[in-house]
Amino acid sequence: MRQSQLFTKTRKDAPKDEVAKNAELLIRAGYIHKEMAGVYSYLPLGLRVMNKIATIIRQEINALGGQEILMTALQDKNLWEKTGRWSDKVLDVWFKTKLKNDTELGLGSTHEEEITALMRDYVRSFRDLPVYAYQLQTKFRNEARAKSGIMRSREFLMKDLYSFSKDDAEHSVFYEKAKISYKNIFNKAGIGERTYLTYAAGGSFSKYSHEFQTVTPAGEDTIYICEKCHVAVNEEIRDEQKTCPHCENADLKKEKAVEVGNIFNLGTKFSEALDLAYVDEKGEKKFVVMGCYGIGPGRLMGTIVESLSDEKGIVWPESVAPFKIHLISIPDKEGKVAHYADKLYQTLVDKGIEVLYDDRDTRAGEKFADSDLIGIPYRVVVSDKTMAEGKLELKDRKSGTVEKIEEKELYGK
Amino acid sequence: MRQSQLFTKTRKDAPKDEVAKNAELLIRAGYIHKEMAGVYSYLPLGLRVMNKIATIIRQEINALGGQEILMTALQDKNLWEKTGRWSDKVLDVWFKTKLKNDTELGLGSTHEEEITALMRDYVRSFRDLPVYAYQLQTKFRNEARAKSGIMRSREFLMKDLYSFSKDDAEHSVFYEKAKISYKNIFNKAGIGERTYLTYAAGGSFSKYSHEFQTVTPAGEDTIYICEKCHVAVNEEIRDEQKTCPHCENADLKKEKAVEVGNIFNLGTKFSEALDLAYVDEKGEKKFVVMGCYGIGPGRLMGTIVESLSDEKGIVWPESVAPFKIHLISIPDKEGKVAHYADKLYQTLVDKGIEVLYDDRDTRAGEKFADSDLIGIPYRVVVSDKTMAEGKLELKDRKSGTVEKIEEKELYGK
Repeated sequence: MRQSQLFTKTRKDAPKDEVAKNAELLIRAGYIHKEMAGVYSYLPLGLRVMNKIATIIRQEINALGGQEILMTALQDKNLWEKTGRWSDKVLDVWFKTKLKNDTELGLGSTHEEEITALMRDYVRSFRDLPVYAYQLQTKFRNEARAKSGIMRSREFLMKDLYSFSKDDAEHSVFYEKAKISYKNIFNKAGIGERTYLTYAAGGSFSKYSHEFQTVTPAGEDTIYICEKCHVAVNEEIRDEQKTCPHCENADLKKEKAVEVGNIFNLGTKFSEALDLAYVDEKGEKKFVVMGCYGIGPGRLMGTIVESLSDEKGIVWPESVAPFKIHLISIPDKEGKVAHYADKLYQTLVDKGIEVLYDDRDTRAGEKFADSDLIGIPYRVVVSDKTMAEGKLELKDRKSGTVEKIEEKELYGK
Repeated sequence: MRQSQLFTKTRKDAPKDEVAKNAELLIRAGYIHKEMAGVYSYLPLGLRVMNKIATIIRQEINALGGQEILMTALQDKNLWEKTGRWSDKVLDVWFKTKLKNDTELGLGSTHEEEITALMRDYVRSFRDLPVYAYQLQTKFRNEARAKSGIMRSREFLMKDLYSFSKDDAEHSVFYEKAKISYKNIFNKAGIGERTYLTYAAGGSFSKYSHEFQTVTPAGEDTIYICEKCHVAVNEEIRDEQKTCPHCENADLKKEKAVEVGNIFNLGTKFSEALDLAYVDEKGEKKFVVMGCYGIGPGRLMGTIVESLSDEKGIVWPESVAPFKIHLISIPDKEGKVAHYADKLYQTLVDKGIEVLYDDRDTRAGEKFADSDLIGIPYRVVVSDKTMAEGKLELKDRKSGTVEKIEEKELYGK
């Protein structure tokens, strides 16, 4: 894309009320727009990053056998009363609204009730199980405080996967597979090394649930890490679990972290409350065993920004960057540089390489500062000087390394 | 996809309270799930259709120069008070909700206010214009009645494009281009012939707005068609406009129709109310001239079902069908048919042809009835009989034509 065509521009400052580093950088670089506290719109660059993250998630969840659906934000009070979660005292993040006839509706913060009710139409026999269904859908949470930018917003995209199994054994097999998929997702998104499988409070059906916690000073959670096993324990269960659950190592390192994903054994809590049952091989009625598995792509995006940015701006992993290459031309008076850069841009586009081309009539220093702020992995400069040498200047955003390369070397990047 | 893996199944009946043909067929075939009146979730097959429609729309709007963004459903009362549209008396489809501190919020039914405010961050000079931004985003409308299935729902996906131009002349050029893009979209979606550019009430800035109305008995609107010019006049302006606006033909045909798209000249209504201005070449402050352009992919999907289905079920145009081929095996006892069908399925998948493979252990009659209901364009049957002939049986869902073809002919379909 030509940067002269992109409607967003970088800004010197984020809104004064913005306190989160992730939102501040993303607003300044033109990725997001703040509508209100905790409510952010995604601009063209931001939506590109979100879509890349969504694609990584979809690939892994589809490979797990997940079938994608799209449920609604508007939720039926009746279902939530059956599970005892309609009250604001039980679920304290409800946004509620009303039909014209005064019927109360909820705005979904999660979808266990809806998908359990939905599955009643399709699950009858053991032959219909297991089923895995997921969505990438907008959630609403009436957060009292919203000071973590897109890491905790009042409206956000979420990938929520639900598993429906015949029994605990079948559930466990999938649950373990989901752990591996989640690791793959965070690895692909570039924060695998600093993301820990974290043991957290379970429920009626399991001793633990599992979170994926990424270490960052901006995190709202505290975890205790076993470096040997690359796992952690959430502070909430620290009293019961003082050692590493894998190797019993007691020397755990305390860190601030943000929960980028979680997986939870729901057992038969929802299937019993909403009567999602099947007939087994012996003709007996059994309740379906459920699990839920969440990742917030926006929170993941915010976490990447918090974790990997430097004093100059954002540093995207290539897998989620809005573009792979930031091509910058420093025009000369005769137009030779612009002519060559135009051609190079077109060649890259034709080769299917994602490139943001800074063709603006702006001074070099500003272009470089913008490029560092926006954080595309490879910066390629074309100028009088590089043309005289017959080379391109390539800077790696992450390492800062600058090298001279042939045009052809760029295609292989 | 293997149909044995698809979690949805066809149903004999839709819920008793469902009165719309589109929703009834889509529920019976497993495309959508009714959460409440006017609120529908999209199941795997339904989401595939929605994504196809969204792709058609994106291609056309991107070609127009549209930049995709994603705004939020939660909306700021302050902005809507500035344009005088916060009151339920002015905008009668509001869903409203509240933050914990009792601040009122709206749930977006449209986004003129938000995008106008957003653009203030990026539009300063004539050099920043024109800009075209759009989103595919979930809207909420508190409809008093919701009896048209997914053609009028309380929560629905919408493509809303907004144009920002320097003056009326620049606006008009884009407005005319948008008309062509819209025609392309409805042509590609398979309802071009029965969809009419329809003159409707304008506003302060234009005599007319333009709708795209698709003729169907399920339509809530009445239009008067000039068959010669393939345009129509909405009943709402019939008193002022008794003839075809193109050829002045007075012999217009009255039809029921559904509005599948609309385009509207907003003039400077929103830019003045929210102070979206730019400095022109002479250094003078001017208000930005805006337009808005909407299409509801769900409504379009519902309209296709209403318009093209027959007594046996849905008939999808190939461009929006969830799969291109419905491969049906009628197993023999020795497993020869299943073996061949498995191989054929894999070959089609490897060739990138979208195929739903009915590998279920179900009798032939049920498979055929399901296939007609689901409405995939090409039905391919493999049975003892076709194998003995060394051919495949191909049925065109739309025409009903059955022919015998070689396997290789299928690849070219």
